[in-house]
Amino acid sequence: SATELDHFLKEFAQLSGAKILVHGGGQIATKIGEGLGIVSQYRDGRRITDAETLDLVTMVYGGLINKKIVARLQSMGCNAWGITGADGNLIPAEKRPVITIDYGFVGDVKSGALPAADWQNLLNGSNVPVVAPLTHDGKGHLLNTNADTLAQEIAKALSPYYKVSLAFLLDKPGVLSDIKDEGSCIPKINHTLYRELKEKGTITEGMIPKLDNAFAALRQGVDQVILGNAHSFREVMAGKSGTRIVHE
Amino acid sequence: SATELDHFLKEFAQLSGAKILVHGGGQIATKIGEGLGIVSQYRDGRRITDAETLDLVTMVYGGLINKKIVARLQSMGCNAWGITGADGNLIPAEKRPVITIDYGFVGDVKSGALPAADWQNLLNGSNVPVVAPLTHDGKGHLLNTNADTLAQEIAKALSPYYKVSLAFLLDKPGVLSDIKDEGSCIPKINHTLYRELKEKGTITEGMIPKLDNAFAALRQGVDQVILGNAHSFREVMAGKSGTRIVHE
Repeated sequence: SATELDHFLKEFAQLSGAKILVHGGGQIATKIGEGLGIVSQYRDGRRITDAETLDLVTMVYGGLINKKIVARLQSMGCNAWGITGADGNLIPAEKRPVITIDYGFVGDVKSGALPAADWQNLLNGSNVPVVAPLTHDGKGHLLNTNADTLAQEIAKALSPYYKVSLAFLLDKPGVLSDIKDEGSCIPKINHTLYRELKEKGTITEGMIPKLDNAFAALRQGVDQVILGNAHSFREVMAGKSGTRIVHE
Repeated sequence: SATELDHFLKEFAQLSGAKILVHGGGQIATKIGEGLGIVSQYRDGRRITDAETLDLVTMVYGGLINKKIVARLQSMGCNAWGITGADGNLIPAEKRPVITIDYGFVGDVKSGALPAADWQNLLNGSNVPVVAPLTHDGKGHLLNTNADTLAQEIAKALSPYYKVSLAFLLDKPGVLSDIKDEGSCIPKINHTLYRELKEKGTITEGMIPKLDNAFAALRQGVDQVILGNAHSFREVMAGKSGTRIVHE
């Protein structure tokens, strides 16, 4: 809701140090798409992005959600700049090749291609980038890109220059050992525990790509990876809530 | 059409020197609004912006049109950055006060409030701002703002630091002395001629606010104001086409 979003944005605005917000918006895109008669198709939990859907997500992610967040943060004294990967060529990507499934206009970030100096310039000027999950192919086309992957790629690219904390925000307190019990949040997960939890079926389908991303980020030099509730952002960042992903 | 837009963007990308593109998008917003069941209301040729319409123009101007232009320009070697007035607080505005008509969420740019140093930083880094006609009130709300007015305000704010040329791009060659004859473009208009053309009824309703903006820009220090056809952008900028607005 707007009130919950504002609560989160206030805590985000108060967080000290250089910071970047990467947002999604799939549910809102689906709702607006329904109004326009655009029905989203999915494969393996990922939206198939045909030309019509690309226009839809460009409007909703790059316009509606991104600019509303920017205007709210500006009112909270946070110098937000809304961007996509096309703006300033900040996130070069390429259209995902068709192997078994054609995801359409979906972009994979080009490994090692993020211009770290441009990102540092942005952050050094006390600007707070607010990133919509859209990239581009450098040939004139926007591409739909998963927000979690984008966050991980940005965190990775900046980790040689900053001590980066990467937080994946959820609508629950973290990784739960009992999905029906919000009090069962696992405070710390390392590789061994992750394997065990997958084997026992404790970690379910939707969480696996998130945790794979989290471990990938750690391996690639990100200092700290946390999964926590967006509603308790301050506590999550203070280490008082959420699940920490650790090497050992 | 997409081909015509690309032709213009190519010529714009090739223009040397610091440059800024301000775009509109009213017709596309109207079309997408119809798909969503949002019917636009107008008073004196200006869209009444209720909450629903604000969401619509935020999506269409700030997302769909802005980001497509940015991606195209990037593919043409032009380091475009899509912005609204909320991003980086680059265009502070205030909700238009209700006197006789309530225009809704419509913003008037705060006179003298554009942060010229931030604009210069953007331009000095060889960045090319692509501006969607949206501003914000600093209290968390986006506002719909007329693109011509926005272009004039930006030109005015930068004129102490740059020799600014302001071009209003039309779908005809300039101000015509005979509206039915595209060959009748008036090459130069000063105050005296403007008065005469209005009295004779040569200059019609839609053109009057544009020309008022043009003369206001000249008075406020803009070096050169031109009205010309977007399809002949190169010729317009080279002084070979279009109507020049001059003091005397």
